Amino acid sequence: MAPEKRDLLSAGDLGRDELENLLELAQRTKDKRSSQLLVGKTLALLFFDRSLRTRVSFEVAAQQLGAHCINVFADRELYGLEPEEEVVMDGPAEEHVKDAARTLSRYVDLLGVRQLSRTGSWEVDRRETLLHGYARHATVPVVNLESTMEHPCQAIADVMTMRENLTRLQGRRFTLAWSMNPEPKNMGPCHSLLRLVALSGMTITLAHPLGFELDHEIVEHARRDAEMHGGSLRVVNDLEEGVRSAEVVYTRSWGSTRYWDDPERERMVKRSLQSWIFDERIMGLTDDALFMHPLPVRRGVGATDAVLDGRRSVIYDQAGNRTPAQKALLTFLLG
Amino acid sequence: MAPEKRDLLSAGDLGRDELENLLELAQRTKDKRSSQLLVGKTLALLFFDRSLRTRVSFEVAAQQLGAHCINVFADRELYGLEPEEEVVMDGPAEEHVKDAARTLSRYVDLLGVRQLSRTGSWEVDRRETLLHGYARHATVPVVNLESTMEHPCQAIADVMTMRENLTRLQGRRFTLAWSMNPEPKNMGPCHSLLRLVALSGMTITLAHPLGFELDHEIVEHARRDAEMHGGSLRVVNDLEEGVRSAEVVYTRSWGSTRYWDDPERERMVKRSLQSWIFDERIMGLTDDALFMHPLPVRRGVGATDAVLDGRRSVIYDQAGNRTPAQKALLTFLLG
Amino acid sequence: MAPEKRDLLSAGDLGRDELENLLELAQRTKDKRSSQLLVGKTLALLFFDRSLRTRVSFEVAAQQLGAHCINVFADRELYGLEPEEEVVMDGPAEEHVKDAARTLSRYVDLLGVRQLSRTGSWEVDRRETLLHGYARHATVPVVNLESTMEHPCQAIADVMTMRENLTRLQGRRFTLAWSMNPEPKNMGPCHSLLRLVALSGMTITLAHPLGFELDHEIVEHARRDAEMHGGSLRVVNDLEEGVRSAEVVYTRSWGSTRYWDDPERERMVKRSLQSWIFDERIMGLTDDALFMHPLPVRRGVGATDAVLDGRRSVIYDQAGNRTPAQKALLTFLLG
Repeated sequence: MAPEKRDLLSAGDLGRDELENLLELAQRTKDKRSSQLLVGKTLALLFFDRSLRTRVSFEVAAQQLGAHCINVFADRELYGLEPEEEVVMDGPAEEHVKDAARTLSRYVDLLGVRQLSRTGSWEVDRRETLLHGYARHATVPVVNLESTMEHPCQAIADVMTMRENLTRLQGRRFTLAWSMNPEPKNMGPCHSLLRLVALSGMTITLAHPLGFELDHEIVEHARRDAEMHGGSLRVVNDLEEGVRSAEVVYTRSWGSTRYWDDPERERMVKRSLQSWIFDERIMGLTDDALFMHPLPVRRGVGATDAVLDGRRSVIYDQAGNRTPAQKALLTFLLG
Repeated sequence: MAPEKRDLLSAGDLGRDELENLLELAQRTKDKRSSQLLVGKTLALLFFDRSLRTRVSFEVAAQQLGAHCINVFADRELYGLEPEEEVVMDGPAEEHVKDAARTLSRYVDLLGVRQLSRTGSWEVDRRETLLHGYARHATVPVVNLESTMEHPCQAIADVMTMRENLTRLQGRRFTLAWSMNPEPKNMGPCHSLLRLVALSGMTITLAHPLGFELDHEIVEHARRDAEMHGGSLRVVNDLEEGVRSAEVVYTRSWGSTRYWDDPERERMVKRSLQSWIFDERIMGLTDDALFMHPLPVRRGVGATDAVLDGRRSVIYDQAGNRTPAQKALLTFLLG
Repeated sequence: MAPEKRDLLSAGDLGRDELENLLELAQRTKDKRSSQLLVGKTLALLFFDRSLRTRVSFEVAAQQLGAHCINVFADRELYGLEPEEEVVMDGPAEEHVKDAARTLSRYVDLLGVRQLSRTGSWEVDRRETLLHGYARHATVPVVNLESTMEHPCQAIADVMTMRENLTRLQGRRFTLAWSMNPEPKNMGPCHSLLRLVALSGMTITLAHPLGFELDHEIVEHARRDAEMHGGSLRVVNDLEEGVRSAEVVYTRSWGSTRYWDDPERERMVKRSLQSWIFDERIMGLTDDALFMHPLPVRRGVGATDAVLDGRRSVIYDQAGNRTPAQKALLTFLLG
């Protein structure tokens, strides 16, 4: 394996200066639709799950840099993959991730992987063996296109969007709040964003119902990072308290790790959580906060049309910033 | 929304002069395999249904203009989409068409949508809510890649093919005839073509079995257009009568709106319609007519091999003309 | 149909001098990542089966030559296809392969087809009607991207890899050996390679269990070719005997044509064949042989990690050589 290859599996892989450089590069690249910086480079993006923004924005980003993007819809186009090491492959998997990763490394200059593991066991899913298998065996950079635990590309675009609106992030009151969704979603975008706003020294409030804790290790790491950079992190279990005086609110739903093996039970618990919706009343409690959501959003469930389409909503800017953020990332990893 | 954006949802969106200009441009572009006219432009084509000609010819058209074409096979790659406005999204749909359309408008310069809605309710399906939802919310041009009601791109290529063979269309005897198919197909190609041949002032005969009427509004509109431009439109329910003395015959099957909710019933009705097939005997009744079909065709069911592969068949020219017709369209919408 | 179009359906379509020229061109093209040799050319590759290496390496090959590659995942994106001639298409197939092939020939410069037919009848499957239907009706070159019987593109890359390691192939001791796999795989890569190593005059040992014979016609043809070029071909039914003193061993599993209609029976028979695995003991019987496998491989079943990841394994070189081999092929067919 090439010792110097650089992956982006977690937003935590980025140092503060690197984030700073990425964001500056993303801003400079934003209105440059065409360059030849990565001409002759090829990406292979492996999608094990559905995608709109990540898929299209990456292909556009590659295109605008002169690179070529191969999208592989892995569950249907590839052989079943074995991610565990040193096993006898007599089950359904026809190919080992080692062989797929090493083969693809002969063809392309960068691999992306989206997989939202859903085995029913939280302990299994949080290990992200497929993503880490690709990273271990590929000899080219591997980028996380969203996993159970992280979605660093979304988070970079989100921080970029905040900076476009607030200039300076340090000390700003930022609330990350759970909201309603009938499905148990992954934590990826929220974990990754938490890491990056902590690095930016924001005054962070994390608001969610009891039982819907984010990953303990990531929250504690974010708390230390926030404090180190002049910010803070508190957790509340009440939406109104969580959003009060916020300058930025960011919402998304995620599943409970307690009920990870029992979605039916989670659905029952969530019956009493339907007030976790962003409407004009909730937004009225904020300090005229910027409203953010990574999409997709269930309108009328996680947030109302009035908020999503309102004056302070920047949801399409977040989506739009995926392209320049990823152009900067590709340049950083391959340029 | 950009007020000046221009969609092509129906062949009826084209004025007579615009059609003329498109066809001239298509003819000029036909043998020019490579230009850089749309370099840096990106298209996203969303396929909710199967496609061979539309998909490949659009990607080739984009390629030949220097543009980049992203194909999305939506049912498997995207989140389920909600097309209705102001609903509480607590059903299976995870994303609103508004959010998909506005997001994609940040990434690409033009959207294409193919969806053949098949809910069982003709009243629902003919509204084409998904296509119109994209058009309403996208801030970039939206092109209909075939819907329940229209297939304007096919119709432009069809008219182009007729003109290559007949030079002048006005006053020519044109028959559009239903033919057999075990499946209840949509009306898209036939509706769109009817609009364009009416605009060209042809002497139109529409032939189909009783119960297989095309959309009343479109037929009446076509009749008025045909008469305004020196042509006419009559409807007959007999194939032999319909093709007699025709200079061009165009056939395809379509489903009955009467049995739209009951395909089994339609299948039974069609047992007595097996004589609606284009064979050499039927072609012998015409004035040595050009034979046209938009494909795919069930050989031996809707037309015989002898006719499809015969001297007067231009079925592959119709297919081949999709590329220059769409190059002209893309240039018209984006150039 | 254009009389001079050239297909590659079988490795047997290549003469000895053509193979020589292809391999030389492949070697020269190997480190040239970017050329404009085929600029403006377009390929459509139709995948009716899963693919990793073929799909990605072809897209990269096209890209590196300036050509554009359209990948079609046919079972989901296209209409059902009828490959038989002169039939009444009242079954599930909506389009005849003739019409698909002729239409695509209007859009692109080369067609590729991957289909591993699996009807249950060996006599039906070995006819490869879909592939041959495309070849018969297309007016552009058709390339076999792997079929039931052949995988010429893999075989060219395999021979290229041998020559990189052994310089001269004539007279070298080459063993092609069956190995274990729970699934009944096709014979494509083994048939095609057998044809090419025979053409190279190697001393060939074909080793497989009784009942797992390769196609008789191909084996006899290879025997004659080998003898004509100074080599030989023998068949043994014992793995140890088969690999003894070999300078190159190539392994892959394939299904038994005896049990082609009864996979359950084959599975039972294979219970006693678990010793057909390449481990260090088996490799110790060889003359420090090069180890080859076309991938995907079930680790711990067909070969052990120690062998696959060992000093003499060139499995990733085989995979990597797909790109230059196919660049040479595309240049040969289209340049």
